[in-house]
Amino acid sequence: MRKFVSDKSCRKLLHRSFQNLIQHHHHQHKSPLSSVSQSRFLSSSPMAPIPSSNPSAPPVTLDNINPKVLKCEYAVRGEIVTLAQRLQQELQVKPGSLPFDEILYCNIGNPQSLGQQPITFFREVLALCDHPSILDKSETQGLFSADAIERAWQILDQIPGRATGAYSHSQGIKGLRDTIAAGIEARDGFPADPNDVFLTDGASPAVHMMMQLLIRSEKDGILCPIPQYPLYSASIDLHGGTLVPYYLNEATGWGLEVSSLKKQLEAAKSQGITVRALVVINPGNPTGQVLGEENQREIVEFCRKEGLVLLADEVYQENVYVPEKTFHSFKKVSRSMGYGEADICLVSFQSVSKGYYGECGKRGGYMEITGFSPEVREQIYKVASVNLCSNISGQILASLVMSPPKVGDESYDSYCGEKEGILSSLARRAKTLEDALNNLEGVSCNKAEGAMYLFPRIELPQKAIKAADAVNSAPDAFYCRRLLNETGIVVVPGSGFGQVPGTWHFRCTILPQEDKIPAVVSRLTDFHKRFMDEFRD
Amino acid sequence: MRKFVSDKSCRKLLHRSFQNLIQHHHHQHKSPLSSVSQSRFLSSSPMAPIPSSNPSAPPVTLDNINPKVLKCEYAVRGEIVTLAQRLQQELQVKPGSLPFDEILYCNIGNPQSLGQQPITFFREVLALCDHPSILDKSETQGLFSADAIERAWQILDQIPGRATGAYSHSQGIKGLRDTIAAGIEARDGFPADPNDVFLTDGASPAVHMMMQLLIRSEKDGILCPIPQYPLYSASIDLHGGTLVPYYLNEATGWGLEVSSLKKQLEAAKSQGITVRALVVINPGNPTGQVLGEENQREIVEFCRKEGLVLLADEVYQENVYVPEKTFHSFKKVSRSMGYGEADICLVSFQSVSKGYYGECGKRGGYMEITGFSPEVREQIYKVASVNLCSNISGQILASLVMSPPKVGDESYDSYCGEKEGILSSLARRAKTLEDALNNLEGVSCNKAEGAMYLFPRIELPQKAIKAADAVNSAPDAFYCRRLLNETGIVVVPGSGFGQVPGTWHFRCTILPQEDKIPAVVSRLTDFHKRFMDEFRD
Repeated sequence: MRKFVSDKSCRKLLHRSFQNLIQHHHHQHKSPLSSVSQSRFLSSSPMAPIPSSNPSAPPVTLDNINPKVLKCEYAVRGEIVTLAQRLQQELQVKPGSLPFDEILYCNIGNPQSLGQQPITFFREVLALCDHPSILDKSETQGLFSADAIERAWQILDQIPGRATGAYSHSQGIKGLRDTIAAGIEARDGFPADPNDVFLTDGASPAVHMMMQLLIRSEKDGILCPIPQYPLYSASIDLHGGTLVPYYLNEATGWGLEVSSLKKQLEAAKSQGITVRALVVINPGNPTGQVLGEENQREIVEFCRKEGLVLLADEVYQENVYVPEKTFHSFKKVSRSMGYGEADICLVSFQSVSKGYYGECGKRGGYMEITGFSPEVREQIYKVASVNLCSNISGQILASLVMSPPKVGDESYDSYCGEKEGILSSLARRAKTLEDALNNLEGVSCNKAEGAMYLFPRIELPQKAIKAADAVNSAPDAFYCRRLLNETGIVVVPGSGFGQVPGTWHFRCTILPQEDKIPAVVSRLTDFHKRFMDEFRD
Repeated sequence: MRKFVSDKSCRKLLHRSFQNLIQHHHHQHKSPLSSVSQSRFLSSSPMAPIPSSNPSAPPVTLDNINPKVLKCEYAVRGEIVTLAQRLQQELQVKPGSLPFDEILYCNIGNPQSLGQQPITFFREVLALCDHPSILDKSETQGLFSADAIERAWQILDQIPGRATGAYSHSQGIKGLRDTIAAGIEARDGFPADPNDVFLTDGASPAVHMMMQLLIRSEKDGILCPIPQYPLYSASIDLHGGTLVPYYLNEATGWGLEVSSLKKQLEAAKSQGITVRALVVINPGNPTGQVLGEENQREIVEFCRKEGLVLLADEVYQENVYVPEKTFHSFKKVSRSMGYGEADICLVSFQSVSKGYYGECGKRGGYMEITGFSPEVREQIYKVASVNLCSNISGQILASLVMSPPKVGDESYDSYCGEKEGILSSLARRAKTLEDALNNLEGVSCNKAEGAMYLFPRIELPQKAIKAADAVNSAPDAFYCRRLLNETGIVVVPGSGFGQVPGTWHFRCTILPQEDKIPAVVSRLTDFHKRFMDEFRD
């Protein structure tokens, strides 16, 4: 159903690993998906008329909506989360009715929903830009730090007419793009051009924009890691392309092997698919892996040689927890190899939702695009202009995360304290959860080097797999549903991200606040023991 | 090139009215559009391989991007605006080098960019929600009104964990949707359900979401007014559907005639097009017309009988300037006819960008959807969830515009003063510009009953049409470019919105501040006289 290309073994793998998604489809509506996928109108058979004389038949049904919409899946907000929301309501209405007293959300990278506090300086600046008429008032000095007031003035001066309520340039306010480009330069040590920056409402719309640009039909393929963040599969489905998977190697800490890229590229070609781009998520979601620089060089070389656009999801660039790894942007790596505009098409996605800031609700982000011709850039600009511009608060925040307080600024010490507090706590939480998972029978979990997730592998007993089959569920979804029902812990089954068939995983965020982590560990440990006692072969 | 359906005469009309857009396409890139439109991979001819052994050929060119992207046009930010930005830079670098000293932007509904001030209460609440830690401080009482502080607390209490930095429910925060539903009920006198409300980053993403849902292929058509707001044509192009035009009748004040809808629906059917939805923009953009209630009833009846989704663009619901007209939502009209959920699929779009608030940069808005089955709503929710949620400040603002201060609130008087000040000034500006336009030789302009635009018709002399032809320009674009180059006034040629072939128009906003209006009038009047003196037949 879901269109994938792969060599023979991979095709089988993929078919199975996404099978439960397809089954889920079948459960959702009565007509089988296959009849929906066959577009009614592209065939030469006579067209069934819309029931114009029978107003009682609904004009919009699952049989006549866009089949691409029907096909797309987004596991992070899927079935398990819906169940969690229902259980939460039950707890509110009837406290004590469930075997736990709160839902512990470990399903989504949404830190502030779990109590992480925003960075004070960022919020001060946002508030002042929202209501600039207080900037001159004496009370404001007592409420806001001096550098936040100064920064708000600077930003307002960059906005024509100081109008934070006006549509901006469709790429975003020029002055803010200048700041972001300077931040990229400071990070990478290579020049960045503000005209290469497109500010967007979070990273997701930027990803959609690139998919929309590159995908013409199901004959266009996008190389994506498996496991992957399901935004990519959803976006490829919505734009009607083909996901060409490449497996990350769990045995080498989710290593990205260029030989696997090559193999999959050839397999796609042999099936008549034109591969347009390679998605790399670094640090990895859901894997938590941080790529080594040498590996990145190979990837750049591969994209350059094969004429692929490198779509670099770098939204976790501030989330690295182990001393032996450092984040390097693909732009920096490609420039350090001597490759410039003429050599490689590169798109880097960044977001205000991740990092130590975790400002998911502000929907700020940007993409930096290099290597595209002026004509193609004009087309990207045109698509951006159809939605006018991204939200100005998100734009301001994107400039702030790329240019935080500096030594000597009034907020500098408190800013560093808040930032280090969050990042060191995330590192401790990652380690505690990783250790706890590795202590469970039949569970192995790679190191969380970065990002916000662990993706442990569970060896499920045959008896559990049969029990899952009996209720028409994927085994990992079966495990996750039981975990939720018995403990209130919400995680996402590995099948939503893709996994080597026959292996089972789940994604668990490291985001519950530190005082909740012991509860997560003990509930998970107790549950897993009971589960194994029930199903051990 | 652009796919339109129409009966024979209309086809001819449309072909000509959009011809300049097509010409524009040809100018933009070297290869003719036709070769791009023929997808390379859907044909049975052998596939041209991507140049994998020749890294110097760019992987992304106008010949291999999505032809839907190439086809789409968005006139509001088109060629004339690019020229205006260049002239503005020239003025900055070399003041006095042009025949005017400032650019007067009348091209886009972006009020705050032209000096309109935001509503104080709204901005107070936004600032407090951005930085809630000041809510308890004594200085805050001196800086913010009491009801803004109270409202901020109310809103924060509606957000789980008071986390304005967290992703929300993908339809938007439930408490804010409750407020919006209550506002819709108060407006219409009929019930509204918060579960029918989807909060979005402005109205544009909501329009895209519905087009994405309804359009399967170019065999699916959407009935759109001509002239129309080009978001609709752009969105239909991007999703690969067919725009089925219906003409508004300029002679009756841009009247919407159901007979014209019927004729175009039949013409579309006879060409094998399944019409899925009818777009109505009320108050009208670019026409400024406000529909009468009787007319709205006919439209509802038409959609119900024909099984069409009614897509009601109601973003100008607060912008009505004449005492004889009142805004009625299509939901109210259909409910007052006794039609409920089972009778008609209705989507109402609202935005914080328009009205008296004009908060374009905040990207807030919502759609209220009724009449869809639970299964189809689930698909809409799924698409919303792929982008996680709209920005929280925009969500808060959408709740505020649907629930502004009330009698007795501390801000009530100042709020009313600001609101009335803006709306009465807009009404005066509309009247002044309308009169000025009607005083020009060969120009006739319908009344600006609502919205933010005038769409005057210009009888261009044959000599001017020939001069335009000679420089390969549409005559209205020729006029608008001359106007900009000689006066600094930026308006949008009618061809960007569609018009009856052989007629020429431009769209002019009523948004320059009142002290600038005399300059707009005198520069426009002088220019028009010179233009006519040069080209009069």
